[in-house]
Formats: sequence, structure tokens, C-alpha cells
Amino acid sequence: MITRHDGRRPDQMRPIRFQPDIAPHAHGSVLASFGDTQVICSAMIEPGVPRWMMQQNVPGGWLTAEYSMLPYATLERKARDISRGKMDGRSTEIQRLIGRALRAAVDLEKLGQRTLWIDCDVLRADGGTRTVSITGACLAAAMAFARLQAAGLLKESPLRQFAAAVSVGVCGGTPVLDLDYPEDKDAAVDCNLAMTEHLQLIEVQGSGEEATFSESELQSMLELGKLGVTEISAAQKAALASFDPGSDPILLKRLVGMK
Amino acid sequence: MITRHDGRRPDQMRPIRFQPDIAPHAHGSVLASFGDTQVICSAMIEPGVPRWMMQQNVPGGWLTAEYSMLPYATLERKARDISRGKMDGRSTEIQRLIGRALRAAVDLEKLGQRTLWIDCDVLRADGGTRTVSITGACLAAAMAFARLQAAGLLKESPLRQFAAAVSVGVCGGTPVLDLDYPEDKDAAVDCNLAMTEHLQLIEVQGSGEEATFSESELQSMLELGKLGVTEISAAQKAALASFDPGSDPILLKRLVGMK
Amino acid sequence: MITRHDGRRPDQMRPIRFQPDIAPHAHGSVLASFGDTQVICSAMIEPGVPRWMMQQNVPGGWLTAEYSMLPYATLERKARDISRGKMDGRSTEIQRLIGRALRAAVDLEKLGQRTLWIDCDVLRADGGTRTVSITGACLAAAMAFARLQAAGLLKESPLRQFAAAVSVGVCGGTPVLDLDYPEDKDAAVDCNLAMTEHLQLIEVQGSGEEATFSESELQSMLELGKLGVTEISAAQKAALASFDPGSDPILLKRLVGMK
Amino acid sequence: MITRHDGRRPDQMRPIRFQPDIAPHAHGSVLASFGDTQVICSAMIEPGVPRWMMQQNVPGGWLTAEYSMLPYATLERKARDISRGKMDGRSTEIQRLIGRALRAAVDLEKLGQRTLWIDCDVLRADGGTRTVSITGACLAAAMAFARLQAAGLLKESPLRQFAAAVSVGVCGGTPVLDLDYPEDKDAAVDCNLAMTEHLQLIEVQGSGEEATFSESELQSMLELGKLGVTEISAAQKAALASFDPGSDPILLKRLVGMK
Amino acid sequence: MITRHDGRRPDQMRPIRFQPDIAPHAHGSVLASFGDTQVICSAMIEPGVPRWMMQQNVPGGWLTAEYSMLPYATLERKARDISRGKMDGRSTEIQRLIGRALRAAVDLEKLGQRTLWIDCDVLRADGGTRTVSITGACLAAAMAFARLQAAGLLKESPLRQFAAAVSVGVCGGTPVLDLDYPEDKDAAVDCNLAMTEHLQLIEVQGSGEEATFSESELQSMLELGKLGVTEISAAQKAALASFDPGSDPILLKRLVGMK
Amino acid sequence: MITRHDGRRPDQMRPIRFQPDIAPHAHGSVLASFGDTQVICSAMIEPGVPRWMMQQNVPGGWLTAEYSMLPYATLERKARDISRGKMDGRSTEIQRLIGRALRAAVDLEKLGQRTLWIDCDVLRADGGTRTVSITGACLAAAMAFARLQAAGLLKESPLRQFAAAVSVGVCGGTPVLDLDYPEDKDAAVDCNLAMTEHLQLIEVQGSGEEATFSESELQSMLELGKLGVTEISAAQKAALASFDPGSDPILLKRLVGMK
Repeated sequence: MITRHDGRRPDQMRPIRFQPDIAPHAHGSVLASFGDTQVICSAMIEPGVPRWMMQQNVPGGWLTAEYSMLPYATLERKARDISRGKMDGRSTEIQRLIGRALRAAVDLEKLGQRTLWIDCDVLRADGGTRTVSITGACLAAAMAFARLQAAGLLKESPLRQFAAAVSVGVCGGTPVLDLDYPEDKDAAVDCNLAMTEHLQLIEVQGSGEEATFSESELQSMLELGKLGVTEISAAQKAALASFDPGSDPILLKRLVGMK
Repeated sequence: MITRHDGRRPDQMRPIRFQPDIAPHAHGSVLASFGDTQVICSAMIEPGVPRWMMQQNVPGGWLTAEYSMLPYATLERKARDISRGKMDGRSTEIQRLIGRALRAAVDLEKLGQRTLWIDCDVLRADGGTRTVSITGACLAAAMAFARLQAAGLLKESPLRQFAAAVSVGVCGGTPVLDLDYPEDKDAAVDCNLAMTEHLQLIEVQGSGEEATFSESELQSMLELGKLGVTEISAAQKAALASFDPGSDPILLKRLVGMK
Repeated sequence: MITRHDGRRPDQMRPIRFQPDIAPHAHGSVLASFGDTQVICSAMIEPGVPRWMMQQNVPGGWLTAEYSMLPYATLERKARDISRGKMDGRSTEIQRLIGRALRAAVDLEKLGQRTLWIDCDVLRADGGTRTVSITGACLAAAMAFARLQAAGLLKESPLRQFAAAVSVGVCGGTPVLDLDYPEDKDAAVDCNLAMTEHLQLIEVQGSGEEATFSESELQSMLELGKLGVTEISAAQKAALASFDPGSDPILLKRLVGMK
Repeated sequence: MITRHDGRRPDQMRPIRFQPDIAPHAHGSVLASFGDTQVICSAMIEPGVPRWMMQQNVPGGWLTAEYSMLPYATLERKARDISRGKMDGRSTEIQRLIGRALRAAVDLEKLGQRTLWIDCDVLRADGGTRTVSITGACLAAAMAFARLQAAGLLKESPLRQFAAAVSVGVCGGTPVLDLDYPEDKDAAVDCNLAMTEHLQLIEVQGSGEEATFSESELQSMLELGKLGVTEISAAQKAALASFDPGSDPILLKRLVGMK
Repeated sequence: MITRHDGRRPDQMRPIRFQPDIAPHAHGSVLASFGDTQVICSAMIEPGVPRWMMQQNVPGGWLTAEYSMLPYATLERKARDISRGKMDGRSTEIQRLIGRALRAAVDLEKLGQRTLWIDCDVLRADGGTRTVSITGACLAAAMAFARLQAAGLLKESPLRQFAAAVSVGVCGGTPVLDLDYPEDKDAAVDCNLAMTEHLQLIEVQGSGEEATFSESELQSMLELGKLGVTEISAAQKAALASFDPGSDPILLKRLVGMK
Repeated sequence: MITRHDGRRPDQMRPIRFQPDIAPHAHGSVLASFGDTQVICSAMIEPGVPRWMMQQNVPGGWLTAEYSMLPYATLERKARDISRGKMDGRSTEIQRLIGRALRAAVDLEKLGQRTLWIDCDVLRADGGTRTVSITGACLAAAMAFARLQAAGLLKESPLRQFAAAVSVGVCGGTPVLDLDYPEDKDAAVDCNLAMTEHLQLIEVQGSGEEATFSESELQSMLELGKLGVTEISAAQKAALASFDPGSDPILLKRLVGMK
């Protein structure tokens, strides 16, 4: 069996951590980490939906996701979008992916005429920022829903099920789980998988940048992905279980002061 | 067996057509169509590479892809990016996909210190614009390479192999090939596949917008995709075979007047 | 008599062609060509007018024209406006000209509370793109009006008269009609004329870039312009006469599905 | 004979005034007025030309013109371009016109490897702002050239001849010279003419917004235009004659401290 | 006592001048100067307030200030914001300062549901442009209020008191008043003070760019500032006293034609 | 003595905390907090200086500061600059202030031909974000310098002295130190002070938004400010003393891998 540069087995995740309420003004937030990759994930719920939904009488709520790299997330400083005058193409691609994954996990009709804002800001990038983002964003949303339930604003949580994501790839001929940055840079194939906690597929994005891959490689990567998602979902559930949405009644009151 | 709304079998492509030299000032161009979806695909080769490649002594050439919907491509007019003041997020995502697929097909080292510009402008959208774009762009690039070979500027074609793409999805429980717009809108799962002419995978993008899917559904979609790509690759090769890069010596001279 | 580089007489137009329904999702569209200059011209009609018109109770409809060069329209690739982050100055100037010419041809009161969107995208530039655009746009609008009449949405066509445009210039001391790109580049004086089918003037734009011209040269150019417009108007009318707006009832129904 | 609303004869200009050195940091500047229309016109000369000119070894200098309405130039405040996030289309059109007119008046080869910046900012708009701009900009350039000659930086003035501009139009059926805002708003035809002091044509822009016009109307407008330009050129020459470029040696030294 | 480079005493202002109605289409305007620094200051009053104020039922009016350097205000031409594609940071900072100072001087409740637009465009920069702007803008607002009173649209002036501003600094160890550009460039400390005519403080902005300063230096600068503001306020009051808002009844009528 | 809403004395700071290496890819970083206001402050050092410095042979290094509110820093979500298409005016003002304060603390000549990037991102806003930013940024810079010294890239630290900042204001007639958000909103006067650790003034920004203040109030605020800065500087020094720049040799090596 190959030895990965950090000593992990091919099917081994990096340590998964969630630090809740990293952004205390959000309804739900976590600092989500897979190893050294750290993303601030926030969920904020606002009254109202976009104008076109109201005009077309579309029922239920709306969900928007935004993703950004903080300038100091990478070893070389990354200029802010506003300094470059335009949105980064890679960020656009990733935030659309986050939005799709969350929409598979959240029942927007149950949200009512509200907008759920998901924000993911990468504090430290070491491979897999998009999968950490999806994973943390789903947990942040679950915490926000719990707060709104605790405040009596929602009867049941709009979360259908947890969505979790993980990257898999083929490095030096071997499929490996949860690539860090040095692995990601050298991988011949790179695949991002988003699944439900029940291992149903939400999104499969496999890409052989300047290379190609076979169906059996895709199959191996799916198998590894299921291992990863099983572990991640368990961690998400444990974090939600230990989260007390009503522990601070004053904070609760302030957060839910929605019209 | 289900009947599709336009009478096709589930595993049947729409008619594939390529009208070469639709944009005669490009080195290679086609109007590529799958049924009613029509995309102007152009390949232009410029001397030189981006400054950072020269500074870092990266060998070979560069490839950039741009994708845009013409305002009249949809039944409801779509505002131009420049009028809205920013690039459309969906277009950004698609042009990154086109670029990755083309980079798997083209050997940039063989291109020399040149930049290959790929442009895909949708003239009529009826589902599958990104797959028609990849397919047509690869053919346009092949034609451009043929012209540069005919002019003695390239010894061998930088095209490693054809790349083709097709969409597959699950509609009403049945996996179907090459979805048109009404099918795409209603599909529970939507998957875009880019493959080489030898059916190696280049990109797999499966997505269950507000839904999920199983591994066996993914498997069925891959099978359909291989059928589609087999047919599309054959059409690409036939189009290239009937293309005479040197038929118009004056045009050839003008096009290749590169420093 | 001088010989022009392409063998034309000084008072001879390039071949005029109109390929109808080039963009089948538009209400009216043509690929308009004078020789090698090809422009996709589209006319789309939307319900409603800009907010300020409603607030100020301005009767009738609105018309907006947009003009753009496709990146592959020129021998050297032209960057898209959105990549450069701002609208091209020349395009701005031209689309304002197209708008003025169309407003002289169309009776906006008869259009009702609707907006007519004119889009002109240059597929191949070989001189005279603005005059081909005006000419094609007017025909596309006429076709769109015919479709709306066929569908019973308009009682009479808002087209007062055809507007056509042509360039004239002075090359090597001789006034010539319908300059192509090599002539345009060398012309001492360049004049764009838009007229009605009855040879009334709509717009005269004569310009001696880094040169000047006399009134008699202007007079000669006007004479040539009338010859050109006479031929162009006849071609417009012939194209409209052979256009059957109701030939495809399903398409008709879909196109006119306006609220 | 018709009476114009301000008592002028149809062939009568508004009072022409030039206040020199309105912007004392420019090499040349005037506050140019035709009646109540006032434009700050400035000419600044910088060492160097755009990079592409140097790369292509284009000899001589460069000229760029910018035009803008100050927010308080109109009775209703006009938002600044930077607040709206994009250049005003009308301003783009006008500054291109100013640039073309100035390039006909200035011999850029004689300027040497320098860039002439022309800026026109409308302080008060009452019709004809583009013609006042061209007229004032040409005088400002002439003054700047005189200062550079006085300083020994230029041997002879790059000004070939004066360029002047004036608007003419048809109001209530009568051709009139130098329209003010109320006339401009109601005119059926509006024509802007730029000519040399010798009455050679530089630019003719006649436009029947939502109307058309005849050749004889164009002819009448050209005649009026020549009357206007004759008077304007005389005023330009008088202003230049009374301008002493070396009157303030300290200012002169500071202004010409060019590398 | 030190001699300043222009012969002034340390506690001496440059000559203060106000040329009223420099922009006759504004309700109030002045060309304000301290020595060679000249700023066009305009005040325009529009009916209505921003939408959010109406939605939140905020009583009274609104005030917005904009500041810009004209391209020819400096010895080296300064590119326009719209050419650079973004607002200049220094201008942003200054216009926020102008807005705060004016809000201290104007009682927005007395303005009614109207918006006061303050525009400051620097015609010539020689140090202290922000202080000339505040000073001139307050006078322009006072003149605008006087015109609205004369027209019967306002019962009493919303001006609580005059606001005036002046810069002070420490040059070569000596505190000096009203720095011009050469002094400003060399000053170790630079302080901009805005005060009421009664010498109450509105804004204190002291800054030691790449240096620091002591409390006693701040104290000395405040003393000088009071001298300056006393003189400036007197000049403002004199200018307002000699301003006849109703001298031109036709102009008055046109200016106040507000809905 | 008044009781503040959170129980503090008027001259009492909120708890000051610095969590080092919050952004481990930066050369120096802290999560700086005054009470509930939390700002991620980062210092990154890049080789090279802006092109104009090299062209003009300006010796030493360069410093740029950027400030931004994360969308979830406030109770109501704040749209990102890139979504609104332009830089927030308040952020522009604040980042210019941070830059000036840091330039007073850092000897850029000692930095060599390097650029120091300061980034401040507000994670939670509860009043005083700009003062926490300056304070944290100076500490982050000190830590970055320490790391570069430990790596042998700098002989001595370019930090001349610590810069610290604090807000003071007048609430209900009483001068108070370090205002939180509810106090800031109601304060009649708001003053931000930046000082060196030796209590020399770097920047004084006192502002009576819609109010004015007296010299004696300014004096009282300065006194409070000195108390605050004394406490803050001590905390900065303690944090730097307990920071071991060489504790992780591998990290050190990676961070300083500068050309």
C-alpha cells in the first residue's frame, strides 16, 4: 500500500473539525476544517424573496451561496475580487456548486418567504476548499434552522438531510480520499463528490485536467467518496447534536428579531 | 419503451450537423448543431503566450475558451453581459468546462509559443449548449490546426484526439440521451459527459438540482453517453475528412499571415 | 474610369444578400451581407416599456439597438467588451446610429406598449458593418412586425417605410460606393448615409479623418448613396415579399406567446 | 422672416466668447461660450505616446479627447459616469467626434513623440455643447502649442488650421443657425458641422431623429454653417492673437517642465 | 518669525474669493478660492428622498456630496475615474468629509422631503482643496436655500450656521495656516479643521503621514484654525449678504420649477 | 459617575485579546478583539515594489492596507463589494486610515524592496472596527517582521514603535472610552485616535456627525485616549513577547520561501 506524503492511508480522511458560532452575528456559523483547510461558513436568513419570485408567485424561499478566498488563505497573497474589478472565475464556479448542493439538502418551501444566505470564506487553503465549504455550509444552515425553531419562527427544520462533500483523486495511479494541496496539484484526475448522509449522489464532478480517466477509476473514486461522506456526515450530526440553539436567550432574541 | 416528446428513442441523439467556416476570418470555425441547438464555434491562433508563461519559462502554448449566449438565442431576450456590467455566472462555469475539455484534447507543447482562442457563441439554445460547444470547438480547433499545417506553420497537428460531449439525464424515471430544452427543464438528474473519441472520460458533471441520484443511475447515464460520443466522434471525423484546408490559397495566405 | 481592387465600378454595390430566420428564436432575424461583410440582425419584441415612460405617461413603444463585433469577425481576434470591462467606444457610437435610423423608420406609437430590441452582431467584418446593420435590422423588424400581424397582435405594421444605409467615400480622388475594408482604410473621406426607400435623408455622417473634403465631394457622395439605397431598398422589399410569416404555425404560436 | 424665441435672425450666431487660461494648470485652456452654453476646454501635452505606437514605430504624436457634462450643467442634475458605473453613450459619441475634428486640425507628426490630451467639461448646457467643445478645444490646443513654442520645445505649431464647429437645424420649416436648447429639442432635423477656417468640411453629421430631411434642406444647412464657421474662426483667431504665451515667465517655466 | 515661501506670515490665510453663480443651472453655486486653489461648488435641490428613507418613514431631507478633481486641475493630468474604472480612494474620503461637515451645518428636517446635492469639482489644485470645497459648498447651499425662500418654497433657511474649513500644519517646526501645495507636500503634520462660524468644532482630522505629533502641536494648530475660520466665515457672510436671490425673476422661476 | 449599558466605567476599555496565527499562511496574523468586535488582521510580505517606485528610484519598500467587512459581521447581512460592483466608501476611508497609521509605525526603508500587505477583515462588528484593525495590523506586522528576522531575511525589525488606536466619544454628555456599537450609534461626538506606544499622536479624527463639539471635549477625549492606548500597547507588547517566530522551523521555511 502506498504511503501518502502526510502518512495517511489512501482511504483516510484528514481530521474533521467544526468550531460553531465562529461568526456570532450569523444565525448559524462554523469554522469547518478538513486538516489544514479552514473555511468560515455562515448561514443567515432574511425575510423576503427576490422580486421575480413574488411577481411569478413562486412559493417558498430562496437560497444564495457566495464563496471567496480571503487574501491570506494562500501562501502567495491573492488579490481581492473588488481590486481586480471582477469576480474570480473559479469562485463563480464553486459558489454555483455550493448552491446546487445546498438546494438538494434544504426544502425551500418549508423555509417560507425567506432567503437563506450561505457565505463561505476560505481562511486557509490546503486542498478541498469547495468540499469543506459544502460540508460546513450545510451544518451552518442546520444550526440556523435550529435557532429559528427555538425562537418559534419555524415549526420544523427545512433540512431534508445532511449534504456532505469530499474530493477524491488518482495520484500516482492510486485512488486517494480527501486530497490536500500537494496531492491535488499532482493528481491526474480530480473528482468532487457531494452526497446525502444516506449516500445518494447530489453532484459528481470528475475532471482529468490535461488527462483522461476510465470508468473503473471513476468507480473506485465513488467507493472512496462513500467512505469519506459516511465519516463526514457522522461528524456533522455529532456537531449538531451538541449545539444548543437556545443556550443564550438574549443572543437568540437579537438574532431572530426579524420582521 | 417510453416515447420522448419529439419521437426519439431514449438512446437516440438529435441530428448532428457541422457547417464549416461559418466565421471565415477565424482559422477554423463551424456552426455546430445538435437538433435545434446551434453554436458558432471558432478557433483562432495568435502568436505569443501570456506574460506569466514567458516569465516562468513555461514551455508550449496557451488555450483560452469563452462562451456566451447571443441575446436572441432564447425565446426571451437575454441581456448582454456588458449591459448587466458583469459576466454571467453560468457562462463562466461553462467556459471553464470548455477550456478543461479542450486542454485534454490538445497537446499545448506541440502548439509552440502560440495562444489558441476558442469562442463559442450560442445562436439558438434548445438544451445542451455546453456539449455542442465542446464538440464544435474541438472540430474548429482541428480545422485551424489543419490550416496551419497546410501553411507549413505546424509540422504535426497538436490534436491528440477528438473530444466530444453530450448530455444525459433521467426524465420520468428513464435515462435519456441528448436532452433538449423541455426535457432538460424537467429532468430530475442532469449529467454532462466529455469523452475522447476512444471513450476515455474527460469530464463527468452529474447534478441532481433539488434532487439526488443513485450510482446505478449514474452507470446508466455513462452507458448512454458512450453511445452518444461514438456517434458524435464519427461525425467530427467525417467533417474533418471532408475539409480541405488548402482549397483557397489566397484565404490561406491571409489567415496565416502571422508574425 | 478607375478600376477598384475587386473589379467593381465606382458606383457598384457589393452583392446584397439576406438569409432570413438566422436566429429562429427571434421574432424576426436575418443574416445580412454586403459582399463579405456579414451581420446577424435580430428584432425581438417584448411587452412593456421602460419605467420612466410609464411614469411620464409617454404613449407608444420603445426601441433599443445594440451592436457588437463577434471576437472572430476580424482577422485579428477582438476581445469581448466584458473581458475589457467596458463597452467599446466605436460600438457605442454605432448602436446609437442604428437606433436613430430605426426610429425614423418605425412608428413607435403603432407598436403599442412594447419594446423593440434590435441586435446586430457582426459575424465577418469587411467594411460597412454599420450600414449592413441598419439595413438588416430594418428588414428584421419588418419581419417581426409581419409575424405579430399574422398572430393578430398588431393590426397594421408599425413600419412607416424601409430604412437602408450605405457607405460612400473618396478613394484616390474618386467617389466610390459601398467601400470594403481595404478601401475604407485608405479613403480620404468616409460617409455613411441612411435614407428611406423614397431617398429622403435619415442620417448623413461624413468624416474626413485627418483630412477634409469639399461640398462638391459631399454632393457626389450623396448621388452615389442614392444609387446604392435604391438597390438596397429593392432587395429589402423582395426579401420581405418572399417571407411567409405564417408558414410555421407552431413556431408562430411559440414566438408570440406574449403576455 | 421668422422671429426666433430669443430674437435672433435665422442666420445669426449667439455671442461667441473665449475666456483664456480658465484652468491655469493646463498648457492651454479656455472657457468657450456660444450664448449660455459654456464649456471648459483644456489642452495638456504629455511626453510619450501609447505603447502600441512605440512598438509599431508609428511616427509622431497622439491625441485623445474626453468630453463630460458636469453634474450641474443641466437644469436637472445629471449623475456622474462613475456613479452610474459606466460611460454615458452620448458622451462617448461626442468625444469621438471631438477627437476626429481635432485630428483634422493638428499635424500629429509635428507634435513629436507627445500626447495631446483634450478635455471638454460642460459647465452649462444650452444647446450645441459639442460644437462649442470642438471650437474651444482647437483654440486651447493652439494656445498650448504657442506656449511650447515660446518655451523652445516646438519649432513650429502643429496646428495646420483652425477647426470650428456649429450646429444648424430646421425649426418650424426654417433652417436656423446655432440652435439653443429649446430650438434643439423641437428641431425636425439637427446637423452638426465641423469645418476648417477655409470652409473645407471636416465632419457633417445630419440626423432627423424620428424624421427625415431632403437634400435641399441639407444644402441650406451647409450654407448657414459656413456663415457660422466664418464668424467663429475669426473669433478664434482674434483670441489667439491677443494671447501672449510668454507673459508670465515663471508660469511658463513650470508648465513646460517636461522631461 | 519665519518667512513662508510666498511671503505670508504663519497665521495668514491666502486671499479668499467667491464668484457666485459660476454654474448658473444650479440653485446655488460659487467658484470658491483660497489663493490659487479653485473649486466649483454647486448645490442643487431635488424633490424626493432615497427610497429607504421613505420606506422607514425617516422625516426630513437627504444630503449627498460628491468631490472630484478635474483632469486639468494638477500640473500632471489626472485620469478621470470613469477611465480608470473606479472611484479614486482619496476622492471618496474627501466627499465623505464634505458630507459630514455639511450635515452639521444644515437642518435636514427643515429641508422637507428633498435631496440636497453638493458637487465640488476642483478646477485648480494648490493645496487645501477639501477645505475650499467645504467652505464653498456651504455658501452654495446657503444661496440655494435663499433662492428657494425667495420662490416661496421654503419658509426659513435650513442652514443652522455656516460651516467653514481650513488646513493647518507644521512646516519646518512652525505651525502654519492654510498650506499651499509646496507646504502641504513638506509638512510633517497636516490637519484639516471644519468649524462653525461660532468656532465650535465639526471635524478635526490631524495626520502625521510617516511622522507623529504632540498634543501641544495639535493645540497650536487648533488656535491657528480658529483664526482662519473667523476670517473665512466673515467672507462667507459677506458673500451671502451681497447675493440677491431674486434679482433675475425669470431665472428664479426656471430654477424652482420643481414638482 | 455614569453607568455604561454594559457596566463599564467611562474610562474602561473592553477586554483586549489577540489570537496569533489565525491565518497560518500569512507571515503574521492575529484575530484581534476589543470585546465583541473581532477583526482578522494579516501581514504578508512580498518581494518587489510597485513599478512607479522602481522607475523613480524611490528607495525602500511599500505598504498597502485593505479593509473589508465580512458579510456576516453585522446583524443584517452586508452585500460583498464585488456583488455591488464597487468598493464601499466607508471601507475606502478606513483602509486609507489604516495605511497612514501603519506607515507612521513602520520604517519602510528598512523593509528593503518589499511590499507589506495589510489585510483587515471584520468577523464581528460591535463598534470600533477601525481601531481594532489598526491595533491588530500593527501586531501582525511586528510578528511578520519577527519571522523574517528569524529566517535571516531582515537584520532588524522595520517596526519603529507600536501603533495603537482607540475610539472615544461623548455619550449623554460624558466622554467615554472604546465605544461599542450601541454607544457609537448614539454618541454626539465620535473620535478615533491612533497613537504610538509613547503616546505621540499619529492620527486624530474627531467628528460631530450632525452635531458639533468644543475644544474642552476634544481635550477630555484625548486624555481618555491616552489611557486606552497605554493599555492596548501593553497588550500588544505582551503578545509579541510570547510569540516565538521560530517555533515551527518547517512552517518558517515555507513562509519565507521568497525569491
